[in-house]
Amino acid sequence: MTDSVPGVLAAVLSPLDATLAVDIDALARHCRWLLDQGCDGLSVLGTTGEANSFSLDERRRVLDGLGERGLAGALLLPGTGCCAIEDTVQLSATALAIGATRVLMLPPFYYKGVSDDGLFAYFAEVIERLGDGRLRIFLYHFPQLSGVALGPALIERLLACYPGTIVGMKDSSGDFAGMVRTVRAFPGFTVLTGSDEFLLPLLREGGGGCITGVSNVAAAVAAQVLDAWRQGDGTAAEQAQARLSSIRQAFVAYPLTAALKEVMAEYTGAAGWRRIRPPLIPLLPAQTAALSSALDRLGFSAELAP
Amino acid sequence: MTDSVPGVLAAVLSPLDATLAVDIDALARHCRWLLDQGCDGLSVLGTTGEANSFSLDERRRVLDGLGERGLAGALLLPGTGCCAIEDTVQLSATALAIGATRVLMLPPFYYKGVSDDGLFAYFAEVIERLGDGRLRIFLYHFPQLSGVALGPALIERLLACYPGTIVGMKDSSGDFAGMVRTVRAFPGFTVLTGSDEFLLPLLREGGGGCITGVSNVAAAVAAQVLDAWRQGDGTAAEQAQARLSSIRQAFVAYPLTAALKEVMAEYTGAAGWRRIRPPLIPLLPAQTAALSSALDRLGFSAELAP
Repeated sequence: MTDSVPGVLAAVLSPLDATLAVDIDALARHCRWLLDQGCDGLSVLGTTGEANSFSLDERRRVLDGLGERGLAGALLLPGTGCCAIEDTVQLSATALAIGATRVLMLPPFYYKGVSDDGLFAYFAEVIERLGDGRLRIFLYHFPQLSGVALGPALIERLLACYPGTIVGMKDSSGDFAGMVRTVRAFPGFTVLTGSDEFLLPLLREGGGGCITGVSNVAAAVAAQVLDAWRQGDGTAAEQAQARLSSIRQAFVAYPLTAALKEVMAEYTGAAGWRRIRPPLIPLLPAQTAALSSALDRLGFSAELAP
Repeated sequence: MTDSVPGVLAAVLSPLDATLAVDIDALARHCRWLLDQGCDGLSVLGTTGEANSFSLDERRRVLDGLGERGLAGALLLPGTGCCAIEDTVQLSATALAIGATRVLMLPPFYYKGVSDDGLFAYFAEVIERLGDGRLRIFLYHFPQLSGVALGPALIERLLACYPGTIVGMKDSSGDFAGMVRTVRAFPGFTVLTGSDEFLLPLLREGGGGCITGVSNVAAAVAAQVLDAWRQGDGTAAEQAQARLSSIRQAFVAYPLTAALKEVMAEYTGAAGWRRIRPPLIPLLPAQTAALSSALDRLGFSAELAP
């Protein structure tokens, strides 16, 4: 993973223990398996990883725990954006301490209708308080959940003031035309799509790859897209992309994190994978059955088997 | 303030020091002044108080600091609802420790489209982890900011399981008909409006009062509404309500927290009142001038002068 072409990153699920705390051993195992499957990097503590359902201390323990278990910080792109400046600073500092210099940063997401001046002030305050030249920030644009859009005027201003620090964006808006506009407007700024179906289309437009939840179970397919595209094999890339898109489509009717955890439980045999923090809840039995059928029809199980 | 008729509560502003930390001495002074103005209670660390811009530790220091400065916990209704269960538990425990048994609890507000099952599981987990029979929860319904509505089916279920703990709701939705439906559906459940203009109308429908930002500067007027209504003087209550509504109307074009801080700075002469945490920002000079003019036309300054 480099600044210019991160490639395929999983928005890593957080396996939980019986007390609903993150099972860091299981998380580290899952991370290694994802790397084996072809992930170029691991975006832990993002939306799919239920980060906002964990306290600051719990999140810091996750990062410290991954570091202690030998996960290389250079492979991580942890989510560190919180509502409160000091939380974002402390979590980013923990990431830096384990060598994870690249972080994925949500804007503060409670207040709505905030101005670009306010968002700029927020990110500037975080960067200044951290004062660490190693820091590389990927902005996290997910207006459907954050309620706060990160538009081109803000990106331009942040790039002008912090050109070595602001390096890219994860765009989970689902707005492909917007992603393309961002790629074209800011050369050298790495745009990663949060939508599996846009991986190849965005690579062709100059994007840097993807960070997706579905990569928890289909990283091998996403890696096939990327590999074929890098080798200039357009046909193979399109075939792999079609398969990746069909797998994503099987999940579209269900809450994604719960559905992915269900699949992990089903294919690994570890029922604990179903645990999820409220307000998220496990799939209902009927949902599980329908999702399993949809994945079976795709002949999906073989690819996930460890 | 009793469980049945809390009356007029201010959604208390958080004055900041030069490092953007809460100036707890100034906050305690402001709280006492609000009580002098006729507030029945003080809802600190809510939306107007920028709670979500502060870390858990910062919020706990605010509550501990108010306790140390002699603010009676029984007068407080602190906001304690966070995205993460453990944060909500710890902040509520701090509130209880200073005698603030009544708390105002946002739902977890990052994930959207969450189910009532998930919201119920969240509140249940918080209540069970706290395990404190003194706890009294006012749910905080503010879908425009939280993105998560707290509807009648959820309230009914929470009341059925935790009848002594779930005692009321602050409704900041602006939907007066909805507030009235809630009052009628749940006898004994205290509905407080977050909208100044609905104070008298909701009292007449059986509501318990209000928690509003404008009460930071116009608590005396809101208290007049309540007093006149309690004394059965409908004409005086309507006159006071008309004045309160006109004051609220003067603020409607501006970001409320910044506008209220500007007014505090202007009328107290303490410029520090203008400090605000990003992503919120102070009013622009043109906004300040227009707001001042609007308030001057209402002859408003005299009422705020300490």
